[in-house]
Amino acid sequence: MLDSALAARLRIIVGDAHFRDDKEALITHSYDGTPMLQAIPDAVVYPESTEQVSAIMEALSSYKVPLISRGSGSNLCGGTVPVQGGVVMVMHRMNRLLELDTENLTATVQPGMITADFIHHIESSGLFYPPDPSSMRISTIGGNIAECSGGLRGLKYGTTKDYVIGLEAVLANGEIIRTGGKLMKDVAGYDLTKLLVGSEGTLAIITEATLKLIPPPKCKMTMLAMFRDLYGAARTVSAIIESRIIPATLEFMDNPTIRVVDDFAKLGLPLDMEAILLIEQDGDPETVARDIEMIRQICEREQADSIQVAATREEAERLLTARRSAFTALARLRPTTILEDATVPRSKIADMVLRINEIAKKYNVIIATFGHAGDGNLHPTATTDARDTEEIHRVEQAFEEIFAAALELGGTITGEHGVGVVKAPFLEWKIGASGVELMKGIKKVFDPDNLLNPGKVFAKQTRKRVVINHG
Amino acid sequence: MLDSALAARLRIIVGDAHFRDDKEALITHSYDGTPMLQAIPDAVVYPESTEQVSAIMEALSSYKVPLISRGSGSNLCGGTVPVQGGVVMVMHRMNRLLELDTENLTATVQPGMITADFIHHIESSGLFYPPDPSSMRISTIGGNIAECSGGLRGLKYGTTKDYVIGLEAVLANGEIIRTGGKLMKDVAGYDLTKLLVGSEGTLAIITEATLKLIPPPKCKMTMLAMFRDLYGAARTVSAIIESRIIPATLEFMDNPTIRVVDDFAKLGLPLDMEAILLIEQDGDPETVARDIEMIRQICEREQADSIQVAATREEAERLLTARRSAFTALARLRPTTILEDATVPRSKIADMVLRINEIAKKYNVIIATFGHAGDGNLHPTATTDARDTEEIHRVEQAFEEIFAAALELGGTITGEHGVGVVKAPFLEWKIGASGVELMKGIKKVFDPDNLLNPGKVFAKQTRKRVVINHG
Repeated sequence: MLDSALAARLRIIVGDAHFRDDKEALITHSYDGTPMLQAIPDAVVYPESTEQVSAIMEALSSYKVPLISRGSGSNLCGGTVPVQGGVVMVMHRMNRLLELDTENLTATVQPGMITADFIHHIESSGLFYPPDPSSMRISTIGGNIAECSGGLRGLKYGTTKDYVIGLEAVLANGEIIRTGGKLMKDVAGYDLTKLLVGSEGTLAIITEATLKLIPPPKCKMTMLAMFRDLYGAARTVSAIIESRIIPATLEFMDNPTIRVVDDFAKLGLPLDMEAILLIEQDGDPETVARDIEMIRQICEREQADSIQVAATREEAERLLTARRSAFTALARLRPTTILEDATVPRSKIADMVLRINEIAKKYNVIIATFGHAGDGNLHPTATTDARDTEEIHRVEQAFEEIFAAALELGGTITGEHGVGVVKAPFLEWKIGASGVELMKGIKKVFDPDNLLNPGKVFAKQTRKRVVINHG
Repeated sequence: MLDSALAARLRIIVGDAHFRDDKEALITHSYDGTPMLQAIPDAVVYPESTEQVSAIMEALSSYKVPLISRGSGSNLCGGTVPVQGGVVMVMHRMNRLLELDTENLTATVQPGMITADFIHHIESSGLFYPPDPSSMRISTIGGNIAECSGGLRGLKYGTTKDYVIGLEAVLANGEIIRTGGKLMKDVAGYDLTKLLVGSEGTLAIITEATLKLIPPPKCKMTMLAMFRDLYGAARTVSAIIESRIIPATLEFMDNPTIRVVDDFAKLGLPLDMEAILLIEQDGDPETVARDIEMIRQICEREQADSIQVAATREEAERLLTARRSAFTALARLRPTTILEDATVPRSKIADMVLRINEIAKKYNVIIATFGHAGDGNLHPTATTDARDTEEIHRVEQAFEEIFAAALELGGTITGEHGVGVVKAPFLEWKIGASGVELMKGIKKVFDPDNLLNPGKVFAKQTRKRVVINHG
């Protein structure tokens, strides 16, 4: 329960209609896209301006009450669950595109704008904002920045980080800072902009972002290749990159995913394939045609069982359906779906998929794997049941071993979902004890009283690293 | 003078031949590429491994003696001058390309490798590392990372920051950390990799870097356009970008630069032109030809007085000569050349050039301006004489006003040279007092005893912002 004087102060700042502490609002904001995680906040506020955010933060800091800022809460790491109580701040009212500057190719936007709406605006102005997280129809730009969201185009175009060039943010004490600007080059001190991107709401509250835009590709082609041999698919990925082609999209689905997707979407996929690659290239027409032809030849050389190149946009959409259905198809199998994002160097994709399969077998759990093969960002996905604590325990053990395997292959515990609560016990595995200490030090500089999204990124206890016993 | 026990310990770590405290070595390492700045170190060490760097740092931290790590010292911000004494650590012996991974398109390199040598290796393997600082023939990769160097290709390809994906670094206490990896996506905690890039040796000593490579463009075309009207040139820059073309290079020289360059290189440039644009595009042949033709049309529309498109590589080299000679030509005019890098949004190029000219006139100093028009990164260059303290004072006043003008136009005090000593008094103008406090806090987390390159980035006193009186 919030101190009544503080509640009254917050009501004055945002207006009565935008302060909620009724049960319904509290429950609605007690969870996010992450399974099996819930905590009730003390209140929910909906600010409409940077000044209100600043005033809220000033009030909360004087009462030492935590703040969890959130957009749509579509994250998968427990990033917006108020695990230590406090006030949830929903950014949806700050959802305006403030400026589209076609001379400098930048957009300045408020954090609460839905990503897909933003992209729609940008594309209808003949420009291009590449980050395309799968959540984009519900996620917000602010959430994307907080988590440094990736997506299907990461391979060629990078992730959210590569497009954020300026920020306005409110600090824990309510002060407003501005970093970067409409500048392609700026080395005035440490790069606070990139530090805030991916900081998961633990360092400051982003209230405005200046994003870099680029000219859109003139055309796009889509193809699908199926492989009986997992290594054939993996060698194809490597051979494409080695032949100096960076496709816009290079997605992968393993056999368990193919089976589930086909059962769900009735696409008539061959169920004996070990892997499907979905490949897209964009750019100028001549380049795209040449690249797709080279990729087709590589697929043939690597014994692809079937190769389909879409002749029309409609056909391309049909080819995309399988990959797009993957999560939905898996999610309907059993009550609980846990989607992870262990990431490896792209040359290690096949090794990693085999390791995931071994681990799933060892713990007798169902894990299907799909994801972004081109950048090594895989989504091993467990279908399970949160009510079966014994099975959930095995799933957790399996994922622990999957993270360890990713690190052993030169990878990371999270490629695009963030640390949040879920990966916090494993952060030290990736960055080491000194790395974690540095990060904790940075957190303390920005937020000495630990008020901004407390309980995230840093775990009370680091998990002991499992010793992997192959075979 | 170094404590003799410490000196003995350093000698043991690096070997007698690689520890120097003779007068010649101390004087040689008392300055860098920055004019009018010199300070004598207490010793110079030349480590050959990360382990040696770690042992050196452990020794220095126990004696609380500062360390200044440097490559070739080609920076222009006083970044490697030992202004508070201490030990200069020269990284030239750690100059190996450790791995070129053609499957993952990464290179792992030691910091002391000369940038041009690195680029030569990469290009002869059919790959591409875009950052191309003008200093590349003498500068090191480690220096480029410390300063986040830019270059002529920044507009299209970004700067050093965009290519550093993993680091090994030694902390102030001698501990070794590793960040990132051969990963295109990694969101495991705060982005320490990008934080270290551009931190000017004040947070940690970089001992190894993993760099992202990309496929090389298949061809390149070069053109030169001359304008009687400065705004015509500026409008051309904007119109190119607005027509959705991002050239590989889009360089600018103003009239004073043209005059000096022509006098130096005898190129027969027309001396009544207000601006020359040097434009290059690279990529697939069809795209390049189409873009260059569109750019040619834009130049014509904006009343370019002459437009030359190079038909051969030799002709292209000839067109490039003017821009390449700019610094050398200016440097020979008078004893002291001060090259700055005030940067503005690219739409403000013409305004900025006019402001620079006004300011130069007001203080009766010679300032010629050239630079990277495409990303708004200008190099106003004063030719002066360090011995004439009265004139130098006027030059400093002029630059102070130039920085203020850049900020007023939405720009920054430094686009690619770094803060070092030279820009430290102005850092607060860009990032505000809270921003500077955050940066100081980060510095303290990494380096609590202020041993790593002390006296840089943060000034003892912030310069009072000048009030600009137009006209």
